[in-house]
Amino acid sequence: MPLFDLPLEQLREYRPDRDEPADFDTFWAATLAEAREFDLAAEYVPYDLPLTGVDVFDVSFAGWGGHRINGWFLLPSGADGPVPCVVHYIGYSGGRGFPKDHLLWPAAGYAVLVMETRGHGGANVGSPGATGDPHGSANPQAPGMMTRGIMDPADYYYRRVFTDAVRAVDAALAHPAVDAERVVVSGGSQGGAIAQATAALHPGVKAALIDVPFLSHFRRAVEITGRDPYQELVRFLATRRDSAEQVFRTLAYFDGINFAARATVPALYSVALMDDVCPPSTVFAAYNHWQGPKEITVWPWNNHEGGGGYQSEEQVRYLHKLLSEG
Amino acid sequence: MPLFDLPLEQLREYRPDRDEPADFDTFWAATLAEAREFDLAAEYVPYDLPLTGVDVFDVSFAGWGGHRINGWFLLPSGADGPVPCVVHYIGYSGGRGFPKDHLLWPAAGYAVLVMETRGHGGANVGSPGATGDPHGSANPQAPGMMTRGIMDPADYYYRRVFTDAVRAVDAALAHPAVDAERVVVSGGSQGGAIAQATAALHPGVKAALIDVPFLSHFRRAVEITGRDPYQELVRFLATRRDSAEQVFRTLAYFDGINFAARATVPALYSVALMDDVCPPSTVFAAYNHWQGPKEITVWPWNNHEGGGGYQSEEQVRYLHKLLSEG
Amino acid sequence: MPLFDLPLEQLREYRPDRDEPADFDTFWAATLAEAREFDLAAEYVPYDLPLTGVDVFDVSFAGWGGHRINGWFLLPSGADGPVPCVVHYIGYSGGRGFPKDHLLWPAAGYAVLVMETRGHGGANVGSPGATGDPHGSANPQAPGMMTRGIMDPADYYYRRVFTDAVRAVDAALAHPAVDAERVVVSGGSQGGAIAQATAALHPGVKAALIDVPFLSHFRRAVEITGRDPYQELVRFLATRRDSAEQVFRTLAYFDGINFAARATVPALYSVALMDDVCPPSTVFAAYNHWQGPKEITVWPWNNHEGGGGYQSEEQVRYLHKLLSEG
Amino acid sequence: MPLFDLPLEQLREYRPDRDEPADFDTFWAATLAEAREFDLAAEYVPYDLPLTGVDVFDVSFAGWGGHRINGWFLLPSGADGPVPCVVHYIGYSGGRGFPKDHLLWPAAGYAVLVMETRGHGGANVGSPGATGDPHGSANPQAPGMMTRGIMDPADYYYRRVFTDAVRAVDAALAHPAVDAERVVVSGGSQGGAIAQATAALHPGVKAALIDVPFLSHFRRAVEITGRDPYQELVRFLATRRDSAEQVFRTLAYFDGINFAARATVPALYSVALMDDVCPPSTVFAAYNHWQGPKEITVWPWNNHEGGGGYQSEEQVRYLHKLLSEG
Amino acid sequence: MPLFDLPLEQLREYRPDRDEPADFDTFWAATLAEAREFDLAAEYVPYDLPLTGVDVFDVSFAGWGGHRINGWFLLPSGADGPVPCVVHYIGYSGGRGFPKDHLLWPAAGYAVLVMETRGHGGANVGSPGATGDPHGSANPQAPGMMTRGIMDPADYYYRRVFTDAVRAVDAALAHPAVDAERVVVSGGSQGGAIAQATAALHPGVKAALIDVPFLSHFRRAVEITGRDPYQELVRFLATRRDSAEQVFRTLAYFDGINFAARATVPALYSVALMDDVCPPSTVFAAYNHWQGPKEITVWPWNNHEGGGGYQSEEQVRYLHKLLSEG
Amino acid sequence: MPLFDLPLEQLREYRPDRDEPADFDTFWAATLAEAREFDLAAEYVPYDLPLTGVDVFDVSFAGWGGHRINGWFLLPSGADGPVPCVVHYIGYSGGRGFPKDHLLWPAAGYAVLVMETRGHGGANVGSPGATGDPHGSANPQAPGMMTRGIMDPADYYYRRVFTDAVRAVDAALAHPAVDAERVVVSGGSQGGAIAQATAALHPGVKAALIDVPFLSHFRRAVEITGRDPYQELVRFLATRRDSAEQVFRTLAYFDGINFAARATVPALYSVALMDDVCPPSTVFAAYNHWQGPKEITVWPWNNHEGGGGYQSEEQVRYLHKLLSEG
Repeated sequence: MPLFDLPLEQLREYRPDRDEPADFDTFWAATLAEAREFDLAAEYVPYDLPLTGVDVFDVSFAGWGGHRINGWFLLPSGADGPVPCVVHYIGYSGGRGFPKDHLLWPAAGYAVLVMETRGHGGANVGSPGATGDPHGSANPQAPGMMTRGIMDPADYYYRRVFTDAVRAVDAALAHPAVDAERVVVSGGSQGGAIAQATAALHPGVKAALIDVPFLSHFRRAVEITGRDPYQELVRFLATRRDSAEQVFRTLAYFDGINFAARATVPALYSVALMDDVCPPSTVFAAYNHWQGPKEITVWPWNNHEGGGGYQSEEQVRYLHKLLSEG
Repeated sequence: MPLFDLPLEQLREYRPDRDEPADFDTFWAATLAEAREFDLAAEYVPYDLPLTGVDVFDVSFAGWGGHRINGWFLLPSGADGPVPCVVHYIGYSGGRGFPKDHLLWPAAGYAVLVMETRGHGGANVGSPGATGDPHGSANPQAPGMMTRGIMDPADYYYRRVFTDAVRAVDAALAHPAVDAERVVVSGGSQGGAIAQATAALHPGVKAALIDVPFLSHFRRAVEITGRDPYQELVRFLATRRDSAEQVFRTLAYFDGINFAARATVPALYSVALMDDVCPPSTVFAAYNHWQGPKEITVWPWNNHEGGGGYQSEEQVRYLHKLLSEG
Repeated sequence: MPLFDLPLEQLREYRPDRDEPADFDTFWAATLAEAREFDLAAEYVPYDLPLTGVDVFDVSFAGWGGHRINGWFLLPSGADGPVPCVVHYIGYSGGRGFPKDHLLWPAAGYAVLVMETRGHGGANVGSPGATGDPHGSANPQAPGMMTRGIMDPADYYYRRVFTDAVRAVDAALAHPAVDAERVVVSGGSQGGAIAQATAALHPGVKAALIDVPFLSHFRRAVEITGRDPYQELVRFLATRRDSAEQVFRTLAYFDGINFAARATVPALYSVALMDDVCPPSTVFAAYNHWQGPKEITVWPWNNHEGGGGYQSEEQVRYLHKLLSEG
Repeated sequence: MPLFDLPLEQLREYRPDRDEPADFDTFWAATLAEAREFDLAAEYVPYDLPLTGVDVFDVSFAGWGGHRINGWFLLPSGADGPVPCVVHYIGYSGGRGFPKDHLLWPAAGYAVLVMETRGHGGANVGSPGATGDPHGSANPQAPGMMTRGIMDPADYYYRRVFTDAVRAVDAALAHPAVDAERVVVSGGSQGGAIAQATAALHPGVKAALIDVPFLSHFRRAVEITGRDPYQELVRFLATRRDSAEQVFRTLAYFDGINFAARATVPALYSVALMDDVCPPSTVFAAYNHWQGPKEITVWPWNNHEGGGGYQSEEQVRYLHKLLSEG
Repeated sequence: MPLFDLPLEQLREYRPDRDEPADFDTFWAATLAEAREFDLAAEYVPYDLPLTGVDVFDVSFAGWGGHRINGWFLLPSGADGPVPCVVHYIGYSGGRGFPKDHLLWPAAGYAVLVMETRGHGGANVGSPGATGDPHGSANPQAPGMMTRGIMDPADYYYRRVFTDAVRAVDAALAHPAVDAERVVVSGGSQGGAIAQATAALHPGVKAALIDVPFLSHFRRAVEITGRDPYQELVRFLATRRDSAEQVFRTLAYFDGINFAARATVPALYSVALMDDVCPPSTVFAAYNHWQGPKEITVWPWNNHEGGGGYQSEEQVRYLHKLLSEG
Repeated sequence: MPLFDLPLEQLREYRPDRDEPADFDTFWAATLAEAREFDLAAEYVPYDLPLTGVDVFDVSFAGWGGHRINGWFLLPSGADGPVPCVVHYIGYSGGRGFPKDHLLWPAAGYAVLVMETRGHGGANVGSPGATGDPHGSANPQAPGMMTRGIMDPADYYYRRVFTDAVRAVDAALAHPAVDAERVVVSGGSQGGAIAQATAALHPGVKAALIDVPFLSHFRRAVEITGRDPYQELVRFLATRRDSAEQVFRTLAYFDGINFAARATVPALYSVALMDDVCPPSTVFAAYNHWQGPKEITVWPWNNHEGGGGYQSEEQVRYLHKLLSEG
């Protein structure tokens, strides 16, 4: 992969104008209020696997529309007193996978609540999922999730997902083993976009770990990359040639740069300079708008895998420092 | 593409056992009865294009769940008295496209009612669609439509589609310009599968034109081809490793060989011997079960494009003969 | 496909210098005069298909060198008096296909004469052809047609094709059912290039419909795109390393920008901004040189499919307005 | 991926003749004896990461030739008394990755010693490695490791690797926190092949977990699959056309079916029926020769990912039962 | 590449029935007689390159239709008396390349006459050509040469090529520096097919060196391989669906097995068992019909590259032995 | 391939700053001195092939570490007195191939000594090799040779290769049939890089023929191209994320621009403007630093094949002129 985006020194200054609907905040306030009319009804079913160091639960709760959202909840065994909790969101196409995929935070002494992204997880052999999206689409869609309901913000797929994510934080805050003062959101790619939005939408979030986030600065993304999932948008626009104005109107309610501009908690970002799935300028566009204290790890030679396990360990150290201090 | 399936002489005799649920007929009778509780409410909006030889209408009607299903209705201009009507179903990924794509039957003196396959048509640049699938999926799904709702026959995507297709025939039969004694179903690939099912489900259908049909003999299809859309099933089974039994239980309600075994009207099939999307043995499996009078055109050197325009002209001649005689 | 060419605002002004041989007009005048020494000998054989709304003929006439060129001629049934006629040229690799592919203009009340591009149509499963190119090549060639005879303008493939195209207009003008005051040329990609050249070469043409034209501004095309068919040129130049000067000398007689600079009739163009087969700057290079009244439809999210059926309907409306007025 | 190997019922019986050198046992006894002349010199350096549930060590020891072999050693924090230990080997191309990748066994109360495969881990972005292979190759080689030193059993790459693997078990047995009666080997693909060989070569191993093993039944593998890494062999044979006899002579010392025929401890295998990297017949060839108690999990719809996390949980349950009983 | 054709033991016996036109010999006799009515007019222009060990000439002569066919003629410098001569034919897509590509036979003390395959050599960067095919095609064709003129044996491309090849032998025989008793034909792939045919058609040929020959046993080839150039035929048949009978009728005049059945001179063949361009069964089909003394070198691990330089050296040794004895 | 690098006029001026270690010359002086402590021990074994115009020897000598390096030595038969000698180095992946591949220089009256690149030649079907690299790697490596030992200049693969190359010149100079005043180095791609370095490192070299050289201006190369072998570096850097500084420190000892800046003999370069393997700016970076008399042939339409046989003939003419004059 050759370099294809702006040079790093320009990326560090790249802070494009935002295209924000006037009713952005109203839209989200109403959406969340409506979702909270459903009882959260979080359930924790012990998972049958002979583990000794961690207690694993199959968790579910009511997300947008009261739909059941599945996930994992892992708690270090034998903790004395509430522990911090990382609410983790999944990348595009993946389901929740297996408890074994989420053992790092428990090994660090934290709980982790892994939320599934509804509808995903049906074709990712490494990360099976359990949660459907019972809400269909009023418009024809491209395969994948990017264009489901895209002709109307109220109908758009990520309205449901971001709402689920806020409710997942609600669930974490309500769990007796969790220290409600130390709930953090995290995720990479789509998961990073969800964490980014949730940090802006939920005042109970104390920090965010955002890796190579997707769903940021759509206008530039669709012009600079030829890869999925952003290409789902291009395929839709190329097919439904009269829909562009409405599509971008909808996307403005979900653009990461509009959430970043509202977030005030500390954040650790990461970005990869050869990432042609979530190009670095779209990541810096959000990062440079983030209002809270922030750091970004730059991976110069990587594509969308970003910092991988190196970044995970950065995050363990970052939270260890942040939550000890705080 | 090398030959990869059975030799033609064996294909002509290939008639595998069927795996049919005991309540197959009950399932479909109940499904259709439930759908018909919604008023069909067919609407025909004249389409604004300065044509003189054909009258074009943007049609919609209530399909499964009362959802609005869109399509085109084209009528030869100035016909004196009711004309025969071909109800046409679309192949995988396509929407209804443009009126210009459906001018052959009007040029032959027939009406044509083109039904959209709900949800498709969002990413096929040549065939945009207008109809969403407002019903989501209770299970996570592979991108595409093959696994939407696949864990339960009642929830499966093609239950809604086949029901829409039956209602499309209802609409054609009810149109004053259509001769209700001469309504025919047609389609290729997915459209062929829908036509095949509809011919079995709707007693008002007089004949069927079925090209390289999809959705037939699933068990063999997933073992013999490595191409989409059948591979959507394999991806799902590979991911949700505990779902195979339920998946095949669901599919049995939708397998073309079970519909073919119930169809009694005349049919013109086509099959391509180098078709690795809908392998010839899966086509012959249905054809050899078809109970009505039947012919099949064999295209020895073609892949899934099958007979293309050659076969379209075969169909014009076939219907001309059949409907004149009838 | 990411954007890769100039931004739209620059495209609208992009009008490169032309590289035109001094004897350009002489070359073409002599070529056409020579071709017209052969009797046109247009033949119209009724095509055996039971259609009622359109009369279909298998047409042939003497093109360059007196070679028989095949096509379709479709006439709305029962027209009272001469009708306008669209002479339509085919895109690269395609043959004339089937009558059903050309029913839009008859449905709009026009005749259409579809001309085959000699030699093409042998390997495009959807568009079989019937016309060979009996003239070989004095030079070795790359597979395809782009380099056939390219070492000498007199021997170059497109000299024969453009001449065939002029003769096709002669045929249309001579048909008794055609209104000779309302003959229009059309085509997409290679067909657009042929229409563009023919509009400049034949004074009987009244308007041109030119979609995503090929064969324009060769110098830039071979430097900016890595896709076929322009890559046929690059392969040839890479192989016959001493031929570049002669190749470009030949191409100058066939470059669309040199034809556009001579065309004075109204034209409706279309261009796609993500088209890496016929890059938008090569299209605007010709459009901006066009001397007649002109409009261009810009498709921002499309590749070489351009406007597809949307553009076809634009054309129906455009001609309806133009020819009614005229 | 279509099915391409034998049907399952034949696979269950597939037990091909073995091609075994007369001095197979002598070769390995001498190899191991020579390696054990180097002091094992296992070192455990605490890894700097703020974890609480597991103690992580950067381990190294003297492998073949006394070369330093790196890995991870993870121990559940605060265990009272020796724990069972899984010695885990890595798949082709991967390095040891990160401690977070190996937390399942510690979470189950076991130690895990992860051994790197020398030379690998330099180009797998998700699994970086730290161990080189200081021994080069007396013959030219195909890129990758399959043909390094392949012209002589004494020089072959896997002689060093299998020896390293035996020494890794030596290291586990010698660690004070490990219960030497409960040391198990595990791995998938290349790691499965190493586990398979080590279970035969080291009497201290109590059980083996072998997933979709590579390096078994070479003769069939190179004829039935066209994918890497087996294709490294084919590329070498295609290039060095006079080397086939010697290549297969060398490989006979490393063929999994020869090790399986010597193994007497319990084993849990897994195999995937659509695996065209390590085709199922090559897996069953080894499994059906295995001399100890054995079970095999068959994944009918999977390619080389095999059972993934499902199989990992199978293994936790299997060892839990086996080691509790034992 | 996995093995995909018959096992070697069956290949050695594979001798399918031949489909031979009754007038096969008449057709070729008339074709050659007609060609020989043109004066051969061989010209040898010294090539300007400062070489000392070999004299290089740019050769041309009148082939089919009197068309000029180009090539190289290389002669060992300072030979005292006539030398044997290898007439060499080129593989598909290549031109004559450079004198440096043909130095092996001169280094062995032979002359070599390299004949270009008309029309090829325009897009093979390593092997530029100089010879066009001035004869076009009466039918539309697939890109490439396989279907040029395929609707009529008299018009088919390889009629001209095989005739050129016979005339090349005429030229070699007529050259004063060549020992007319020791003229041999050689070639690989398409060149092998030409050598095979020429050995049957020209009584002056003393032996043939035929590597992985193309154009043999067409019926099986198009069913067993999915690769070019045989796929050019399939594309044509898939497009021109009504042409199969005529296509195979034409091909019967050019099928290598019909030539092999007429050849009586010694031949050295080679075949590769993983060759999916010219599958081994199509090679053995010809070899097993060859009537002269014959040997075949089998390359078990190679694809269409066959024996490469190993085989070239086999040929040097073979001819050295054969021509010394002879 | 579109143009992707700087325009030609800028390339001609492109002379980037060099990043050169302070001990560059010391490093190489010590390396060569150490190597020359091994007896060169060149052996020439006559090769058994019945050739008359050239004497072929299987040559070997002691390279770096005293390892045996293989190659060919070809001498025009019957030369009276010493002849000039070209020492030729091979491109990436290739072995020495066959004597027939190296007949051009003998045909021109020169000796040629072809040196193998250790370790290569195991998977290039056209160019088998015979020389292994007995020195392994202290670090894990990417498949291929680019990162073998890259963490330390002393351990890096190309240290051994460049040393072998200098010793090959030693061997040529010492051969009694070679005119030691007329020894020239040559090569393309990797071979060009080796020739470039050797011309700087060995005072006995009289001229250099350098085609599309690899291993020059690494910093730019890894940012501008996405193709192998430069991508081996990117894969390594992407995996071993903490190694970049050390990697580039090592590479500075091997960067072609540092050798070019030390070379004073005449050189004939070639470069291809569409070369995305060794991008033209990396070639000009070295060329523009070359200190001796120099010429460069620019191939505007070619990718990495560069000038091919055209350039070979340029070289014959260039040396003919240079060595005659000299």
